[in-house]
Amino acid sequence: MSALEDLIEHLSRLPSIGPKTASRLAYHLIKTDNGYNKLLGEEIATIQDKIFPCSICGSFTETDPCPICTSSSRDHSTICVVEQPQDVVTLLSSGVYDGMFHVLGGAISPIDGIGVDQLNFAKLIKRLKEGSFKELIIATNPTEEGDTTALYLRQILKDSDIQITRLASGLPIGGDIEYADKITVARSLRGRIKF
Amino acid sequence: MSALEDLIEHLSRLPSIGPKTASRLAYHLIKTDNGYNKLLGEEIATIQDKIFPCSICGSFTETDPCPICTSSSRDHSTICVVEQPQDVVTLLSSGVYDGMFHVLGGAISPIDGIGVDQLNFAKLIKRLKEGSFKELIIATNPTEEGDTTALYLRQILKDSDIQITRLASGLPIGGDIEYADKITVARSLRGRIKF
Repeated sequence: MSALEDLIEHLSRLPSIGPKTASRLAYHLIKTDNGYNKLLGEEIATIQDKIFPCSICGSFTETDPCPICTSSSRDHSTICVVEQPQDVVTLLSSGVYDGMFHVLGGAISPIDGIGVDQLNFAKLIKRLKEGSFKELIIATNPTEEGDTTALYLRQILKDSDIQITRLASGLPIGGDIEYADKITVARSLRGRIKF
Repeated sequence: MSALEDLIEHLSRLPSIGPKTASRLAYHLIKTDNGYNKLLGEEIATIQDKIFPCSICGSFTETDPCPICTSSSRDHSTICVVEQPQDVVTLLSSGVYDGMFHVLGGAISPIDGIGVDQLNFAKLIKRLKEGSFKELIIATNPTEEGDTTALYLRQILKDSDIQITRLASGLPIGGDIEYADKITVARSLRGRIKF
């Protein structure tokens, strides 16, 4: 049954979908409501026509420039640098940030072949020069790659007047010290604050 | 971004895909090769036009009746009763069975509202009456539901001349007794064979 094998093969190319899950999904799709299949299939086929990166900040958007870059109510003097477009969604959902964003498209990772040239630094530097930013918040992930990227950013901006900050690392809220990994505990100790 | 939210919502209706995985898949689809999206979308939208249950045995097929039911080289005197169409694929791949199949569409499970009337027993009984079957192999799962279904089958066929067998249960090949669950070990002891 080539139609089924093709579908399983293509589903298994999705991230976190192995051959067994792909097979289970395909059999589900054969049995489920066909209207749902038509809808989902159309959405997958056309998603890139509807959602694309903002030409200014690189966030995913349905209009260009995106609603954040063109917002008159948001703070245009603060810029938050993130690795991925989905990080923008997470930071927005915190409800405590009302500035601009800049998506690098990843973090420096020589082992994965991702260097400075593969990331969206050039446009960031241009934005910083042309804009009137007072603070740049580094919101790269608390990983080796995110740390490397943060250090690189600090270095290239060391002669600018922009204040550079980075998201705090430490124990996740609601977490338990007993079960926290030692690197997180070490970070929470080094970054301890007056209480 | 409603197009993205819609896609995430519809992806998360798939089995074993939670909201986080759905979101990850959607962001992947925005960034991946668009030709792949068009292909996968089309396949999902049209899978039910190409694959459907065989009107005789209930296996999924691209032609009706399916190639197994119409095969002249397979044994038409043996019928293997399974719960799901995908079980047919697994049994075929073992390479040791060359008879017919019958898909029940599930197993008896009152707690899930699946009784005798929800399963494909009527067509099975008709096939047994009209065909010339000598052996019926029960290949329902070794679970409570599969066992119940097997017992029900044995009961309704108790006055027929067909020999009824069931797949052996026991330790999986390549498995380790140390790590086998106690119910499997119990089954393998009760079903021990002369060596």
